[in-house]
Amino acid sequence: MTEAAKPTLRPFLSATAAFRSGADDPRKYLERCLAALEQWEPRIKAFVTLNIEGARAAADKSRERWKASKPLSAIDGMPLGIKDIIETADMPTQFGSPLFDGWHSHKDAASVAALRAAGGVILGKTVTTEFAMAHPFAATANPYDNTRTPGGSSSGSAAAVGAGVISAGLGTQVIGSVLRPAAYCGAYGYKPTVHGLNRTGSHDPQSQSCTGIIAATLADTWQVAWEIAQRAGGDPGWPGLSGPNALPPARKPRRLAFLETAGWALATDEAKRQLGGAIDRIKAAGVEVLTRHTHAMVDAIEPDIADAMNLSMKFSDFEMRWFVRTLADRDVSKLSDPVKERFAQAEKLTIDDYRAVLAERDEIREAYSELANDVDACITLTATGAPPVGLKTTGNPVFVVPGSLLGTAALTLPVLQAEGLPLGLQVLGFADRDADAFAVAGWIESLWR
Amino acid sequence: MTEAAKPTLRPFLSATAAFRSGADDPRKYLERCLAALEQWEPRIKAFVTLNIEGARAAADKSRERWKASKPLSAIDGMPLGIKDIIETADMPTQFGSPLFDGWHSHKDAASVAALRAAGGVILGKTVTTEFAMAHPFAATANPYDNTRTPGGSSSGSAAAVGAGVISAGLGTQVIGSVLRPAAYCGAYGYKPTVHGLNRTGSHDPQSQSCTGIIAATLADTWQVAWEIAQRAGGDPGWPGLSGPNALPPARKPRRLAFLETAGWALATDEAKRQLGGAIDRIKAAGVEVLTRHTHAMVDAIEPDIADAMNLSMKFSDFEMRWFVRTLADRDVSKLSDPVKERFAQAEKLTIDDYRAVLAERDEIREAYSELANDVDACITLTATGAPPVGLKTTGNPVFVVPGSLLGTAALTLPVLQAEGLPLGLQVLGFADRDADAFAVAGWIESLWR
Repeated sequence: MTEAAKPTLRPFLSATAAFRSGADDPRKYLERCLAALEQWEPRIKAFVTLNIEGARAAADKSRERWKASKPLSAIDGMPLGIKDIIETADMPTQFGSPLFDGWHSHKDAASVAALRAAGGVILGKTVTTEFAMAHPFAATANPYDNTRTPGGSSSGSAAAVGAGVISAGLGTQVIGSVLRPAAYCGAYGYKPTVHGLNRTGSHDPQSQSCTGIIAATLADTWQVAWEIAQRAGGDPGWPGLSGPNALPPARKPRRLAFLETAGWALATDEAKRQLGGAIDRIKAAGVEVLTRHTHAMVDAIEPDIADAMNLSMKFSDFEMRWFVRTLADRDVSKLSDPVKERFAQAEKLTIDDYRAVLAERDEIREAYSELANDVDACITLTATGAPPVGLKTTGNPVFVVPGSLLGTAALTLPVLQAEGLPLGLQVLGFADRDADAFAVAGWIESLWR
Repeated sequence: MTEAAKPTLRPFLSATAAFRSGADDPRKYLERCLAALEQWEPRIKAFVTLNIEGARAAADKSRERWKASKPLSAIDGMPLGIKDIIETADMPTQFGSPLFDGWHSHKDAASVAALRAAGGVILGKTVTTEFAMAHPFAATANPYDNTRTPGGSSSGSAAAVGAGVISAGLGTQVIGSVLRPAAYCGAYGYKPTVHGLNRTGSHDPQSQSCTGIIAATLADTWQVAWEIAQRAGGDPGWPGLSGPNALPPARKPRRLAFLETAGWALATDEAKRQLGGAIDRIKAAGVEVLTRHTHAMVDAIEPDIADAMNLSMKFSDFEMRWFVRTLADRDVSKLSDPVKERFAQAEKLTIDDYRAVLAERDEIREAYSELANDVDACITLTATGAPPVGLKTTGNPVFVVPGSLLGTAALTLPVLQAEGLPLGLQVLGFADRDADAFAVAGWIESLWR
C-alpha cells in the first residue's frame, strides 16, 4: 500500500455554477470521481457493485440538460452511492449477506427512483453490514486509516463519501448506522425524522429505521433528502420531509441542551475535551447550553434515553425475527454468529413484550418533545472517540441510538477530532422539524469557519 | 367442461377435533383439498404456482404434532393459499405481471413466516391482478359460474377458498381487493384495521393497504389473523391485531347503522332488496338500524365517504408512481394499459397534493370514529350485485372502498344472494376494535342459522 493522500470531501452543489457556465460538466465531474475511485477503492473497499458505464451514460445525459439550462433538479449529475440494502433496478441488492449473493430485485426503491428522476448519477452499491445489523462480512476500511473501521452499518457510503469518491450516499439507520459511520469518515450525516423519507424497496423494515444521507456538505445533505421527499414523499401514509428547496439558512438558536446520554461514561477523555471545547465555542458566541447539572428538565430526560440501546434492540429483535427465521430455515450456516445470537433473544419476546416497549417509546418521545419548549436542539458527541482499530466491528453506536429511539431529526457535523481522526458533533433536533435542525446545525458549523 | 359440483367451503377449525381423536389427520385433510384442486383448478385457474410436495411434507409434520397432542397452533395443518404479491421462500412471487416472471425473493413475508411457524400448510401462490391493481392478466374464474369474475385483486385466494380447495387464503386490500372477491366467491372476508397485520414482504406498500384473510368460516378467519398477529405483529411500529385466542363470542349490538355509500346508486334492485331483507331480519331480532334518513349523524358521514374511490386512487397513485416509473423504464410494453393510464394521472400529483389528501383522510377518519359512540358497527352491501360476466374486469369496489379509506376493520359475510350467486353482507367496524367487529358479525350471521 502506498502512502494515501489525505481524504477530501467532494461537494456538489457548489460545483454546479461551473456546469451552468460550461467551465465544467457532470461527465467531467464524474471522471474525477472515477479517478478517486481508482485511487481509493483498493484501500477502502466501499463498493459491492459498480455500474460505471451506467453512471457515465447518466452523467452524459445530465451534461446535456445543464447545457440546455434544464437540469432536472439542483442535484442533477450528482454522483451517488446506494447502500446495498436498498433496491436498484440496474444492480443486484445483496444485503451484505451470502444468502443474497447475486439477488436482484429488478426495480428501484422509492428513494432511488426519486434520485434518478432528479438526475442523480448512481455509481454503485455500497457495502452494508449483514442485513444492516451488526456483522460486517466485508472488509470496508476507513479512508483516514485503513486499519480502522469506517463504522456501520452504512459502511460503504460513509467510506466512499469520506474519500471523495462520491458526493453523497444513501444509508439507513435503526440504531446508529448513518451518523456513526458518517462521523468516523469525516462526512456530514443526517437521519431524518422517522418516516420522513420513503423506505419502500429498502430492506430495513424496523419501526425506527430511516433512509439517511451521508454527504460532503450540509447543503448537499439537505438537497439530496429534499429531492427524494419531493418525488417519493415519506413512508406511505406520512407527510414526509418538508422545508425549503435549498439548505435552510443558518439560524442562531435560542438555547441548546447538552445531552450526556449513556455514551458519556464510555467516551474517551479526548472526545470529552473536544465536546467541551465545542460547548465553550457555542457559549462564546452567546448561546446558553443547558446541561443535566444546571437544568432539571435536561436531567429528567437523561434516564429516559439511557436505556435507548436496550429498548432499540427489543424493537429490532421482534421486528426482524420472522425474517431471520425464514433465512435460518434456508441455510443457517450462512448467518453470522451475532445474528444467530440475537435471534435466540428475539424468539423469547412475545407480542405483549413488543406492545410494552412501544408504549414506553411513545412516552419517552412525548417527554423529549417537551424539551422543544426550551431549547432549539440538543448537542452531544456522535461517537465515543476515534474509529476503533480493526474491521471486524463497526464501533459503538451509544451516542446516536437515542436519536433513533426518539425518532427525531439528527445530524453529525465533521468539526471535531480524536487521535487526529474525524469525530462528529451531533445535533439532535425534534420530530417533524428537520429544517430547524439544519438551521441550527448551519449556525453551529459556522463557528468553525 | 363437465357440469361443476356446487362449490362448498372447507372449514378447518371444526375439523381438528377429529385430528385429536385420530379419526382424521392433516395429511388426509390436505389430500381432500388436492382432490378438490384437481376437480376445480382447470375451471377456476386460482393458482400461479403450486408446491404440492412441500404441502404434503408440511401436512405430514403437522399430523405427527397432532398425534403427539402438540399442535403449534389452532391452525396447525390448515391448507392455505398466498396471494402472489406476498413473498414465499419456496415459490416465486410474480406480482401478476409479466415483468416479474419467475421473480424469486428467497424469503417469506412476515405473514407467511408466521403462518408456517403456526403449522400452516402452504399449498401455493394464488392469482393476483397486476401489482394487486385493476388489470387481470390471468383468466381466474368464479367457482359459482366460470364465465364470471371471482373479483380482484385477490382473485385466486377467493376462488380457491370459494371452491373449497383451501380453507383460507391471504389477500391484500388497498381499495376493495379482499372483501369484494370474498363476497363474489361466497367466502368470508376480513380486512383488518390498517397496520393490524404485518405487511413486510408483501408488495402492497400503499398507506391504506392491509393483509386480509379470505376463509371458510368466521372462526377460521379470525384464527388465521390472530395467529399471524401473535407471531409477526402488525406493521412495524404498530401494536397489531389484538383480541382473544379464538373467535370473539357473538354479541348482540346496541345499535347498527346502515351506510348507503356511493354504492347504493349503483346497486341492482335485487341487491337492494337483499340488503333490505337483512335489515328487516336484524330489526326483527330487536336491534335498531339507523339510516341517513332517520339520523343526522349517519347522514353527515355519507358525503365524507362518498368520494372514497377518488381519494383512495390519489393515495395509490402517489404512493405507487415511483414503482411504475422504475418498471416503465425497464419495459413499458409489459405494463397493462390501465396501469399506464393511472401513471399519467399519478405524474401530475405533487407532494403538496398528497399532503392535502392525507389531511382530508385524517378528518374523515376522525368524523367516522365518532359514530362509535352511538353504534357498534355499520352494515351495507359488499358488492353492487352478482359478480359481473367476463374475466377481463373484476367488478366494482364501490361498497368496500370506504372501509379502506377509513382504515377500519371490515368483514363480509356470505349470507345474501343475487342472481342465485353469492352476494356479501358487509360489517364495517371501527379502527383498532377488530374483535368487536367479529363479535357483531357473529351475531348477525347467527340470524341466518
